[in-house]
This record gives sequence, structure tokens and C-alpha cells, in this order.
Amino acid sequence: MRIAIVLSGCGVFDGSEIHEAVACMLAVARRGGECRFFAPDVEFETIDHLTKRPDGTRRSVLVEAARLARGEILPLAEYRAEEHDGLLFPGGFGAAKNLCTFATDGAAMRVLTEVERAIRDTHRLGKPIGALCIAPVLLAKVLGAKVTVGHDVETAAAIEKMGGKHEPSDHGRAVSDERNRVFTAPCYMLPSTVAQIADDAQAVVDAMLAGRA
Amino acid sequence: MRIAIVLSGCGVFDGSEIHEAVACMLAVARRGGECRFFAPDVEFETIDHLTKRPDGTRRSVLVEAARLARGEILPLAEYRAEEHDGLLFPGGFGAAKNLCTFATDGAAMRVLTEVERAIRDTHRLGKPIGALCIAPVLLAKVLGAKVTVGHDVETAAAIEKMGGKHEPSDHGRAVSDERNRVFTAPCYMLPSTVAQIADDAQAVVDAMLAGRA
Repeated sequence: MRIAIVLSGCGVFDGSEIHEAVACMLAVARRGGECRFFAPDVEFETIDHLTKRPDGTRRSVLVEAARLARGEILPLAEYRAEEHDGLLFPGGFGAAKNLCTFATDGAAMRVLTEVERAIRDTHRLGKPIGALCIAPVLLAKVLGAKVTVGHDVETAAAIEKMGGKHEPSDHGRAVSDERNRVFTAPCYMLPSTVAQIADDAQAVVDAMLAGRA
Repeated sequence: MRIAIVLSGCGVFDGSEIHEAVACMLAVARRGGECRFFAPDVEFETIDHLTKRPDGTRRSVLVEAARLARGEILPLAEYRAEEHDGLLFPGGFGAAKNLCTFATDGAAMRVLTEVERAIRDTHRLGKPIGALCIAPVLLAKVLGAKVTVGHDVETAAAIEKMGGKHEPSDHGRAVSDERNRVFTAPCYMLPSTVAQIADDAQAVVDAMLAGRA
């Protein structure tokens, strides 16, 4: 069982939320699966995580995401849906800034070409797609899927506006869109302990794997 | 129950090993505790995690470690042992390069002043200290403690040379030096799944907390 994890950098304010990304890996490992890592080969504006402000430099999403992957990562353009059993998106501002333009454009957002292709190819093969935190907006936009972002009213409204459905949710379970095979959980869209992040990621991964032989 | 986690950056090749750092946080959260994060306010040579080579730039250990801590981190010089119930060091090359000079000097290594002070202050109060992966070398050097780095013969020899004791170990248990209250596990010093990293971190945290009222 091989799950592709799409990273958007390394750090909550300009990349993948680190606890969520590791929770995804751990959830897959707990079920005996392996992860492969992908990230778009694009640049982003670095946020100093101590001051929480831009530091005036730019970094590579792929190179920074390699930190989470211990160097073993591929450009997202090389993702092949047929070689994987599912696609999984941790959250973090990187998901809303580097994979799409939700952070600046809201419901009018554009999705990065290789991100949209990865989602559509996986969906077309009937394979499951999971997303945590803010990343479900990608699946609302591209697939019109039913997703959750917890109880964030503004993001929920944007999700409905782009053609998705929003279902409010608390920690510990996945919101399931069985028709689209899309599974989401709120993670840091709600106040969270790291244990709740791990539980949410496990719920999403288990929903993705449910019904597998 | 409040555990201080000492970070050395963010990324296995020049900072804290990310999976180990998050596994520490998760292990503490699973037992109902909270983590506070500290890192030395020093610079390091950045390693590009895709090419695994220096990229010619320098970054701040404290600022990069803030990525793991979601911005909530203090300079290690501000650590007060009396305000915490234990001290915990994840591994990664950062532990061997940014907290001490083991990576270049082996058994002749120097330990950063604020790292040594944090260890000595915690030890003096009889509070537990945990370390994963390569970080146990710090406790061998400063305290002459019994530790493990798995089955790495060269590192084990260096540990004995600096006055520590080495006990070989596999995944899933902590090596305990009860007299010094030092608890260690091999993590990525051995081939590991992320699940084994989580189990090792939990074993160390549980050993640290054993006997607490």
C-alpha cells in the first residue's frame, strides 16, 4: 500500500504544517503502508517563523519540503496516479499559498497545474484522496467535493461558493464524500493538541483505506 | 506535566530530525503533558535537503526551529529547569553540529554553553532527561551517562571515550540510566519506519515519567 503525500514546503506559515505532515506519514506507517513524497517545483516567499513576518527572501517549495521527506522527494509533475493507492494533502499555509491561491483569492482561487492534474488523475482512477486542515479547499475547487474545515464559517462559505459542500466537524473523525472518495478532517483549523492531529490524520487514512482487500 | 524540548533547527541534515521532534511532542501529548520549545540562538550552515549538500547560505537555528514549534519557542539561554518536569533532545545532524561539535570533533567535542547548562541544571534537580538518535552523545559527554545509539560501533566507541557507557539497543524500548535519570533510544540511528520512531519516542517519554505521582 503506497500513499503519495503532497507537500507544500516545511513550516506552518509558508509551507506544510509539520505536525500534520508527520501525522500523515505515521498514520500510513501504522497501517503497514509506505509514503512517497511530492512537491511542486516552485518558489515561495519565506515567512520567519519566529516573527511570523516575511523575511524578504524566497525559497524552493521542493527543496524545503525535502526536509520533511529526509531528501526522498520528487517534483509533483512526476506523480503517476496509477503507481499509488491514494493521494494525501497535509495542511499549513503552504497548501493555501503554494498549491493554490486561496490565501489571497478565496473562492476565486487558481490551483497549480500539477496539483490539479494529480487530483484529477487520482480521482479518475477511483482512488481515494485525503486532505487535512485548509487543504480540503483544493478538493472542493477541483472536484466539487464535500469536505470539512472544522467550524471556520468564512472558509466554509468559500467552499460552497466554489461548488463544494461543507460539513462542519470536530476532531477524531473523517468527513467522507464516498462518491468522490474524498476524506477530510479539520486538524489545526480547530484548536488542537498534537495527539488530536495524529488522531485526525489516522481517521482520514483509515477512511481512505476502508474497503481495501 | 511540562517537558522542554530542545531543538537544533528543522531538517535531518542540518537541524532537528523532524519525525523524531514531532514524535517527542506526540509522546508527551499522549500522556496529557505539554511541551515548551527551546533552541540556541546561533547560526548554522544550510544543507540543501534535495541535493544533500551545503547551499552556501547560513540560517538561524532558533528561527528554523520555530517552524517545528509553530512560532512558540524561546532561546535556550532562557530555559529554567525548575519550571519543567524534564528535558528532551530529538536527534538529527543539528544535534551533532549545532548543539555540540560531535560531527566534526568526535569524542573531543565541545558542547554549546547553554546546552551544557540546561543539562546540568536539570540533572542537579534530579529531573529526567531524554535523548533520541545521535543526541545521547550530549548526555555521555556532560554527565558521563549510560546511553544508546543503537548498534553504531563508531559512535559507541566515542561515547565510551568521553566517559559515558554505551548499551546497544533495538527499537521499542528506552535504555535507562536510573542513577542519572537519563533515558535514550536509537530512532534513526537504525533503519526505521516512522511508526518505530513514534514508538521509540514514547518509550523514552514513558521512562522519563515513570514513578511520577
